[in-house]
Amino acid sequence: MPITRTELKNLRALQTKKGRREHMRFLAEGTRLLEEAARFGMWPKILYFAPAMISERATALIERFREARVTCQEIQNRQMEQIADTKTSQGLIGVFETPATDTEQLYHPKYRTILVCENIADPGNLGTLLRSALAFNFRMALLLGRTAEPYAPKTVRASAGAVFGLALAEAGVDDVARLIKESAFTLLAAAVRGEMSAARALVDQPAERRMVAVGSEADGLSEALLGMASVRVRIDHSSDVDSLNAAIAGSILMKEVYDFSR
Amino acid sequence: MPITRTELKNLRALQTKKGRREHMRFLAEGTRLLEEAARFGMWPKILYFAPAMISERATALIERFREARVTCQEIQNRQMEQIADTKTSQGLIGVFETPATDTEQLYHPKYRTILVCENIADPGNLGTLLRSALAFNFRMALLLGRTAEPYAPKTVRASAGAVFGLALAEAGVDDVARLIKESAFTLLAAAVRGEMSAARALVDQPAERRMVAVGSEADGLSEALLGMASVRVRIDHSSDVDSLNAAIAGSILMKEVYDFSR
Repeated sequence: MPITRTELKNLRALQTKKGRREHMRFLAEGTRLLEEAARFGMWPKILYFAPAMISERATALIERFREARVTCQEIQNRQMEQIADTKTSQGLIGVFETPATDTEQLYHPKYRTILVCENIADPGNLGTLLRSALAFNFRMALLLGRTAEPYAPKTVRASAGAVFGLALAEAGVDDVARLIKESAFTLLAAAVRGEMSAARALVDQPAERRMVAVGSEADGLSEALLGMASVRVRIDHSSDVDSLNAAIAGSILMKEVYDFSR
Repeated sequence: MPITRTELKNLRALQTKKGRREHMRFLAEGTRLLEEAARFGMWPKILYFAPAMISERATALIERFREARVTCQEIQNRQMEQIADTKTSQGLIGVFETPATDTEQLYHPKYRTILVCENIADPGNLGTLLRSALAFNFRMALLLGRTAEPYAPKTVRASAGAVFGLALAEAGVDDVARLIKESAFTLLAAAVRGEMSAARALVDQPAERRMVAVGSEADGLSEALLGMASVRVRIDHSSDVDSLNAAIAGSILMKEVYDFSR
């Protein structure tokens, strides 16, 4: 059964920021991403698939979705190509409700490590940071300032599905301040000219709960966030480069916290 | 003085892989990248700039290029937009000769750490790896298999200019084998199910010269390369993700080698 013009229009709208905000929904394409969603029990509101395009692995996944009572609707190849963002569509695409993005609502005391992203405007960098966050047990991320949308197609893809396993809050510096004050977090701020290495800071400043903050490559973290940091940490490197890629810097710091906490 | 139609056609050809191979030249756009080129003494064959579009910082850079006897040619905004790859051109673009890519020719005994990239097909990931390589004193990179082109515009951009400071070889597994045999390198191979952490491997297996090899996210390293490794190293992470992004994994390993060697 083909989808209606209106449905198609609404789906295509989800390729834009405006459309995602209006409909409070987002898309995830391809077997791998949808498998990750299923792994975290995040079920799409509806799954569209083009039977002629899908793999055996995708067929098995659709079976799982059906068992979870997800509506799985067949569509034509041509329609799939119209709603897909990627050039080489794998023939299946899920429509998800955008989760809540309020820090207080999302925060749970079980989160002992939180990532703070400030002005990470590139969706590829943000997605990569979120993937590393999940890998290193940072189950929550606060997204500040001009940080890219977590549920934009490029971010979802670069996250390799990690967006489905994380609490992702659109936050402000006041949220960071409140967590420091009320939930006993300390803040490690990445800074090109930081005082010490993360390894040193972790030993010198014992803490139960930690946030790692990473800012834009061009400007670093804001004075507001730097002012809240218990320490500004640097990642030592050769003087042949000015700085590391933001996703690399953030991931290295999260890994150091992860290794130290185990 | 406007550039001729033929010049314009040749420049536009450099946006394609075929054109770059044919002309043995590549482009680097924008103030930041061209500053990095200058820092490493890599001078463009010719620099094009649109006077109406450039910043003060770019003007100062053009002055430096002129002092180094680089031909700096004014062109019109419209022509700049035709040859630029980025949407928001900064009004200056350099044309560089593609350096040699032969491993034996590029190798120098001063290189004590070398990065090996196998099938890193995404230019963003390759560029990020090269930026980290330069940051962590890996002055040479061997690019194997279906690895992206180092001098493609996206790679150059993601490298933040690191391509100008590195020896970049298009290599084969035989080149890796020769370096191991003749130049006393040992190979640390990134593997999702590696035997031990890099920190452990570095202590357990002292070595004068090391290569770090990273493969594609989908398939990891080839059996050929894994077979040459003195150790397969893993990066410990939570079981909530299958693997890390290839650029993250490679950068973390290079950082561990860098920290250990200092």
